[in-house]
Amino acid sequence: VSPPAAGDLRYDTITFLTDYGTTDEFVGVVKSVIRSLAPAVTVVDLSHDLAPHDVRGAGLCLARAAQYLCPGVVLAVVDPGVGTERRAVAVEVGDGVSVLVGPDNGLLAPAVALVGGASRAVELTDPAYQLAAPGPTFAGRDVFGPAAAHLCRGVPLEALGPAVDPAGLRPGTLPLTRREGDTLHAEVLWVDRFGNAQLNVDPDELEEYGEAVGLEVGGRVRVARRAHTYGDLRTGEIGLIVDSYGLVSLALDRASVADELGIGSGDPLALAVLADTDEPGSGADGSDRAEGVATAVTLGRRSPRPL
Amino acid sequence: VSPPAAGDLRYDTITFLTDYGTTDEFVGVVKSVIRSLAPAVTVVDLSHDLAPHDVRGAGLCLARAAQYLCPGVVLAVVDPGVGTERRAVAVEVGDGVSVLVGPDNGLLAPAVALVGGASRAVELTDPAYQLAAPGPTFAGRDVFGPAAAHLCRGVPLEALGPAVDPAGLRPGTLPLTRREGDTLHAEVLWVDRFGNAQLNVDPDELEEYGEAVGLEVGGRVRVARRAHTYGDLRTGEIGLIVDSYGLVSLALDRASVADELGIGSGDPLALAVLADTDEPGSGADGSDRAEGVATAVTLGRRSPRPL
Amino acid sequence: VSPPAAGDLRYDTITFLTDYGTTDEFVGVVKSVIRSLAPAVTVVDLSHDLAPHDVRGAGLCLARAAQYLCPGVVLAVVDPGVGTERRAVAVEVGDGVSVLVGPDNGLLAPAVALVGGASRAVELTDPAYQLAAPGPTFAGRDVFGPAAAHLCRGVPLEALGPAVDPAGLRPGTLPLTRREGDTLHAEVLWVDRFGNAQLNVDPDELEEYGEAVGLEVGGRVRVARRAHTYGDLRTGEIGLIVDSYGLVSLALDRASVADELGIGSGDPLALAVLADTDEPGSGADGSDRAEGVATAVTLGRRSPRPL
Repeated sequence: VSPPAAGDLRYDTITFLTDYGTTDEFVGVVKSVIRSLAPAVTVVDLSHDLAPHDVRGAGLCLARAAQYLCPGVVLAVVDPGVGTERRAVAVEVGDGVSVLVGPDNGLLAPAVALVGGASRAVELTDPAYQLAAPGPTFAGRDVFGPAAAHLCRGVPLEALGPAVDPAGLRPGTLPLTRREGDTLHAEVLWVDRFGNAQLNVDPDELEEYGEAVGLEVGGRVRVARRAHTYGDLRTGEIGLIVDSYGLVSLALDRASVADELGIGSGDPLALAVLADTDEPGSGADGSDRAEGVATAVTLGRRSPRPL
Repeated sequence: VSPPAAGDLRYDTITFLTDYGTTDEFVGVVKSVIRSLAPAVTVVDLSHDLAPHDVRGAGLCLARAAQYLCPGVVLAVVDPGVGTERRAVAVEVGDGVSVLVGPDNGLLAPAVALVGGASRAVELTDPAYQLAAPGPTFAGRDVFGPAAAHLCRGVPLEALGPAVDPAGLRPGTLPLTRREGDTLHAEVLWVDRFGNAQLNVDPDELEEYGEAVGLEVGGRVRVARRAHTYGDLRTGEIGLIVDSYGLVSLALDRASVADELGIGSGDPLALAVLADTDEPGSGADGSDRAEGVATAVTLGRRSPRPL
Repeated sequence: VSPPAAGDLRYDTITFLTDYGTTDEFVGVVKSVIRSLAPAVTVVDLSHDLAPHDVRGAGLCLARAAQYLCPGVVLAVVDPGVGTERRAVAVEVGDGVSVLVGPDNGLLAPAVALVGGASRAVELTDPAYQLAAPGPTFAGRDVFGPAAAHLCRGVPLEALGPAVDPAGLRPGTLPLTRREGDTLHAEVLWVDRFGNAQLNVDPDELEEYGEAVGLEVGGRVRVARRAHTYGDLRTGEIGLIVDSYGLVSLALDRASVADELGIGSGDPLALAVLADTDEPGSGADGSDRAEGVATAVTLGRRSPRPL
């Protein structure tokens, strides 16, 4: 298959996400390899400072960004199993609007699900589209980066390797909330730079909880107040806000609620109707609704659409 | 108003400054939104690791860079009041050579003043040039980034919202030095990565101080020697050098003077004529001159010119 | 000499490496200066978070990347002697395929040697290709960045300043291994973000050592096992793998071997034949071979080729 001439790109953007950090030259080397293969492509960095080997955190990061990414190739590498039998894959979404390239370890799954699922997928096995390498541990440089660049140049997906069944790709796992009576058991999905703690909680799930909500974390109970934005909170007051992704986040005004509560990504907590509030809880209804959540992906409020 | 065709850009560069950090996807998402709206624009990152919510520090960073920035749009977001009544603005300088986009919280003010003041300004209110958002807390993605992209595409400033009086924009506050007899009371403006401490002191203010200057900080007195560059200093010797922005900085050769003295941005210190020096101080003159400083912006030695 | 029109670039890529960090505006200002002078050039960041003043570490970083960089200008600034008599230079390699720009302090030497040596070099002295500066301490902005941009625009190397003999450029120093009987004395070249510790050891040097190798570090002896990739190691087992650059690295699976062993860049260690192994050491042969290493640059297994 002959790729189109340079400048006649199939995709002109690669969105790039890794846990490589930016101290070592890893990110720059992958970009240089991409530039050698597809000079007119622009690389947009999503993050390279994700916690090393944190596949779940990186998958959530990619899912949060997914609906805002411009069409193109997404190159995502958080890959503790590099060099082992985990597959290297390219996953097409939106009938070719975008392609996600990375390891088949659950990293790509939340974003793929969020944008409507995969239309096709292949395993990256053809060495003609890889760099020869002295060792197997830098797949971003040798396998994934070249695949992303070749896809931009118009190399067809199927040229990169054999088709794999999208249904067989390793899923991501997102925690669901669980309702017990008036208590909503939830989990911290993400703590951002400012110390805000995003929960796996949809605003609808808090409808019956009133303005002030009991917050059980680490054996203590605190009160959190629902607010519109950070500046609506008094100093030291814990807020429950609908964050910029449409999920419920814990927040303080100009301070880190994660530090205040001693919580981090993956930690459990519970939201409860306060005993002294006038608003009755409605546990039964809530339980039913929570049980009805069928998808493993709850991030994002908009209609899923292709990247 | 119909914007010009893609490729026929009004501005082709967005200089981008935030306190978002680079671990979360915030910066990448804003870039992706910009690229969706104005694909041919190049984004130049100035910094994203400024201290969270540090409006003063970010404003000084932008001012230090201002005279070196290529013309275009400056997108600056350090925004603790996001979602409250603080205004979102676009400020035109140099009769349209550049436009600064960000919150009206003093962040843009030092750079605007340095390049000669604003020619026009508008409040960013028209939702047609914003993204619909599930929550109000990510204005970089939903308000500021889109405004920057639309300006690049040729959307006129006045289309983004109602005009505001540039004189009513929130000013930045820069500390002035104060002379008492032979003592010059100053402040640390900035500590850079290497531990050099830039002071709010113009080299002219040290004219009468001789080669060795008394440095009072934290109740102790040290001696600092005026030097041309770091390598002119003996190991452990504190230097007073004219830094790359034309201001006086404290420095050590290959070590952090900020660590050595225990100082950080915003800390006060005093420069004094050493008792045992032959050179007389000239307090009265110096006082008069210091009082004569009329502008709040003292950064940069060159003639102000448009970004 | 009249440079070619904009868009008719001699080089279209600048690979950029510094110890500036990304908190201060240094990197962004240099990029903005470059963009003002040569708007169509793309800057690829290799790293800006190298340890401050660590010329050796930065030189190794550049050497590791060298064979993967696309042709163009390499702009490298780790420059503790800025403003002193250390020379600012541009070094042409591959008969003009690429040019490396930076201080003549050993930073560029490993990469230059790796790609086959310099064809020409000049000292950057002509102020016509520099920015006027209020102070001498930001040569990236005032000297090196402008030189890189002008080279991209087609300004001939010789216009930037007088020729210097490439043989007189300051060399980098890379530690050689030393064999004593069955013991191979080695050194840590680099600890990456994941805590893997690259040694100055070629895989061939371990040929006689068998699968399990004695590892003497800090007065203790541990056992390291040769493995193909991280995932082949049991939890807590120290591996010796051929890394992605073709050198021997110490590694743990999903953990930092550098933390485990308390080692960092520059630390010595020794590899020894284990007493209880069946495989005989062959000290004499090994010694002879080690002594025969004549080049100071041993990074990279491929044939040196121009950047």
